[in-house]
Amino acid sequence: MAEQYASMRNLRFLLYEVFGADQLHTSSYYEGYDREAFDLALDAAKQISDRYLFPSYRIMDKEKARYENGKVITHPLMRPAIKAIAESGWISAHHPYHEGGQQMPVSLLNASSFLFYCSNANLASHPFLTSGAANLIMAFGSEELKATYLPEMFAGNWQGTMALTEPQAGSSLSDIVTQAVPTADGAYAVKGQKIYISGGDHSAADNFVHLLLARIQGAPAGTKGISLFVVPKFRPENGTLVDNHVTTAGIYGKMGQKGYVAAHLMLGEQGETKAFLVGEANRGLPYMFQMMNEARISTGLMATGTATAAYYASLQYANERSQGRHPSNKDLTQPPVRIIEHADVRRMLLFQKAIVEGSISLLMQCSYYADLMKTCDPAQAKNYHILLELLTPVAKTYPAEMGTQAVSQGMQVLGGAGYTDDFPLEQYYRDIRINCIYEGTTGIHGLDLLGRKVMMENGKAMTLLMQEVKTVIEKAMGRSELRSYAETLSQRVAALHQTTLHLIQLAMTQNAEVFLADATLYLEFFGTVVIGWQWLNQGLSLPENVSNLPEGPEKDFYVGKLHTLGYYFEYELPKTLALEIRLKSENRVTLETTAQFIN
Amino acid sequence: MAEQYASMRNLRFLLYEVFGADQLHTSSYYEGYDREAFDLALDAAKQISDRYLFPSYRIMDKEKARYENGKVITHPLMRPAIKAIAESGWISAHHPYHEGGQQMPVSLLNASSFLFYCSNANLASHPFLTSGAANLIMAFGSEELKATYLPEMFAGNWQGTMALTEPQAGSSLSDIVTQAVPTADGAYAVKGQKIYISGGDHSAADNFVHLLLARIQGAPAGTKGISLFVVPKFRPENGTLVDNHVTTAGIYGKMGQKGYVAAHLMLGEQGETKAFLVGEANRGLPYMFQMMNEARISTGLMATGTATAAYYASLQYANERSQGRHPSNKDLTQPPVRIIEHADVRRMLLFQKAIVEGSISLLMQCSYYADLMKTCDPAQAKNYHILLELLTPVAKTYPAEMGTQAVSQGMQVLGGAGYTDDFPLEQYYRDIRINCIYEGTTGIHGLDLLGRKVMMENGKAMTLLMQEVKTVIEKAMGRSELRSYAETLSQRVAALHQTTLHLIQLAMTQNAEVFLADATLYLEFFGTVVIGWQWLNQGLSLPENVSNLPEGPEKDFYVGKLHTLGYYFEYELPKTLALEIRLKSENRVTLETTAQFIN
Repeated sequence: MAEQYASMRNLRFLLYEVFGADQLHTSSYYEGYDREAFDLALDAAKQISDRYLFPSYRIMDKEKARYENGKVITHPLMRPAIKAIAESGWISAHHPYHEGGQQMPVSLLNASSFLFYCSNANLASHPFLTSGAANLIMAFGSEELKATYLPEMFAGNWQGTMALTEPQAGSSLSDIVTQAVPTADGAYAVKGQKIYISGGDHSAADNFVHLLLARIQGAPAGTKGISLFVVPKFRPENGTLVDNHVTTAGIYGKMGQKGYVAAHLMLGEQGETKAFLVGEANRGLPYMFQMMNEARISTGLMATGTATAAYYASLQYANERSQGRHPSNKDLTQPPVRIIEHADVRRMLLFQKAIVEGSISLLMQCSYYADLMKTCDPAQAKNYHILLELLTPVAKTYPAEMGTQAVSQGMQVLGGAGYTDDFPLEQYYRDIRINCIYEGTTGIHGLDLLGRKVMMENGKAMTLLMQEVKTVIEKAMGRSELRSYAETLSQRVAALHQTTLHLIQLAMTQNAEVFLADATLYLEFFGTVVIGWQWLNQGLSLPENVSNLPEGPEKDFYVGKLHTLGYYFEYELPKTLALEIRLKSENRVTLETTAQFIN
Repeated sequence: MAEQYASMRNLRFLLYEVFGADQLHTSSYYEGYDREAFDLALDAAKQISDRYLFPSYRIMDKEKARYENGKVITHPLMRPAIKAIAESGWISAHHPYHEGGQQMPVSLLNASSFLFYCSNANLASHPFLTSGAANLIMAFGSEELKATYLPEMFAGNWQGTMALTEPQAGSSLSDIVTQAVPTADGAYAVKGQKIYISGGDHSAADNFVHLLLARIQGAPAGTKGISLFVVPKFRPENGTLVDNHVTTAGIYGKMGQKGYVAAHLMLGEQGETKAFLVGEANRGLPYMFQMMNEARISTGLMATGTATAAYYASLQYANERSQGRHPSNKDLTQPPVRIIEHADVRRMLLFQKAIVEGSISLLMQCSYYADLMKTCDPAQAKNYHILLELLTPVAKTYPAEMGTQAVSQGMQVLGGAGYTDDFPLEQYYRDIRINCIYEGTTGIHGLDLLGRKVMMENGKAMTLLMQEVKTVIEKAMGRSELRSYAETLSQRVAALHQTTLHLIQLAMTQNAEVFLADATLYLEFFGTVVIGWQWLNQGLSLPENVSNLPEGPEKDFYVGKLHTLGYYFEYELPKTLALEIRLKSENRVTLETTAQFIN
């Protein structure tokens, strides 16, 4: 049996049965994207994943990227895989037909990219990073920039990157210092260093197109003086590529994702590095946020993909490995049972399933909102936009944090074998962990959620979300097998609402430090409730009385869904009780424990 | 400033101020072990750790153990370090003077070994594994076995191991099949395979002494037919060492602990492998449990050691790295603050501190019980013995599970830097994870705690523990700064008690599957309460009104303790609420979700 890394059945369940994304074709923008078109695209993504991505996942780790004589050498399997993805049109798929794209629904594109991430997150990151960079040029770049860079990026020949982080600044973008000085030809000369640049240099692309943040000489301090530039490694000039003096000082030795390089780049050290302004000066950060928001959803997809593949690897082991006997039957003349027979192993598998299927459901929800934005009237579109803004920190963080825990439980299913490289769990364990750091650490997203998203437009996003959740709860109240879960969720949503009001009260009466001190815990509370909503919403799409369905894989799928929903409500949702207590507490221990007392 | 990997101040606090282990010398058995003797021993362990262990920790990972032509080559830094530990008498320290030991209190020995584990858990494991194997020979072996093996083991020349696991059996020891056939000379010839044998072969020892479980031909099935043997790699015969045909088929490629080999051994494949019975036939498992119980405490020490070293690495980074500003002060003309100024970073550091100092406190508590067993009257000794039995699964599992999370938070403190090998966090993250699997997975310990330890002697151990906890709570009720914590703990202990009664009720009315289905969650609940007890107990040893102490490191230490105690009660103890709800629930989702529904 071929190893499984994703469930096509589950993707179709979400796309067709839960969200009805295959009905988007009734809008003129997505005309033609009927279910057949969806199936074709998904199958095409699966075939590329089967052929190019999954077989190279372990190899790219064991034969990791290396830095030699100023060059970065990545695995030779990467180039044909990136080309295969590009040639099927995935890098440009998102764009309208008139811009060379396929006008593909975001739901379908993200479901497909999820398959790539499941099969090989490290490889898949390359084309989707290029896609994000290209989207930014498409949205804000001049016609000349588009004409110069997009065709090669869409073809998978040139790698796009995000170049934000600097050694002294880290998460604090207001402190970046890379400087851009205007040159006579209307371009800029940049000088500075960028670190942790994912895909920033490798041997599977002919050129690199860095979407880079820098300050134009004399620009205001802080985030209002940051501009966005295109900085190529090789500059197209008169039909040839000229060295643009973007040098790679080295690559980081990472715990995981060893085939996916994080580069340290030096700009303007060994010669002039030309940079081309994207859009207006000093507006770089708002522009970059478009790419960052996409990258945050991609990070959620990547984390969910890795955790999903780990789930199926654990499940296969649990179904094949025999060991021990049931507690009430210690008859040694009988053979050992498969370990999936043990309640504790099933608990770990259900945990994994609850996390990964809850996460992908949320990511499909966000994708579907993005599609609705394109197909509904402008007032509604604005609502979907702010819902998406509110949910983005959750869709990034929940899969990263809980996916990391899910992979850990997956390793535990295998026992000692899971810690060895005889099985892929140890790589999934190392690889997934970075997602809690990529694109803003969990702490940064806590601040974003509570300090910015919850507060924006007087809490309008929160109101909209509460309406969405309430709609699901009300429908579930009418279904006998879901009623108790609906009641539980209703109670937990009320608790989240009260906790939010309590924190807003703090924001008004205390300083920002007090208000935001436990923003990370608030994000955890919020995320756990949001995934509960997603599970209950999946429950609404199950047939009534699943136990009466005819025996077979379809029944198994639906009963499995209902049980996993039950698992989530039994084992996961109650964790919010402790978070609620803490968030409402008057104790300020993390603020009062000043540095000298942490010793 | 030298990098810190442990706190001598905290060890002395626990030994002298909390447990009063330096008063053990008033008993005749530990005569001479006054505070000066304690300090001398601790300082000696610290010196060896500073000189030999800590400097080799990262190197042993980067230049990992390898298998070449049937031989295992480990790092050359290992041999002098093991010799230094042996020459200071640590391997035999536990034994009475008349058996060549130092009659050292377990509290002192474990505090010292903790320093070795903090500085380099992988290296430290070798001598303490030898020590455990030697203890087993000392306790149950013949005089001839003692004379033949112990001197070389105590000298650090021969490596001891535990050889239990077999490919087909894993955690299920009743299914082991390695066979022992009596030979004419009164010994046995063994044939079989053992896997995951830690320290089972390496280049820093001259010989290997495997304490091995096997079945004597014709022995009963199951655990009652298992015997314990000494199986050397090279057999001492007539003053020389003869090849005993214990061959190493390979070593496992592990995610972490790459300097500490897990070997796959073949016995009797390439020639006769002689084995020497330890104690009586078919009593191997009870004997082995002595070593396993010690090894479980050692695993707790190892996990706590790794998490402790990770804590200090994070703390150092947080104190040195500047980034960002306080939420209420975004004035960019002011320099960024040290990241320890951010509440979320402090939360992560306090989490680490609460876990590692809570864990080592429990391990010192267990060690102190072991000392009291030697110095008190037999009736009391029996009580301490069963308290130790009850707490062993917790002392192994809590540091492993929560230590793994603590290291993960430690990595998060560093952000992207934590994921790179520029800092040791990524190694701590990989290394500590195995502790959730070593010496019985967390699931096995859940079954042990609930199915065996809680139930033994009609719950006597549980009653004794409740008394111990109650004593601490009552004392804390009399201290104004501790009263609210005492009340909280009292409430949580009552909840644990009720939950335990609920589960015992299930044991009597339902089958064992229902009773034990969530044993892992019970262990988590139990462990979280036990560490709460340890924190409150530490609180009792703080001076009154710590804020009035004169400024300085001593005040900082005590205030830090009080705050970390507060952190534990605010952020950690409430997690038991969700566990209580789940454990009392009638929902049986993990039992009812049979294999076909997990898909």
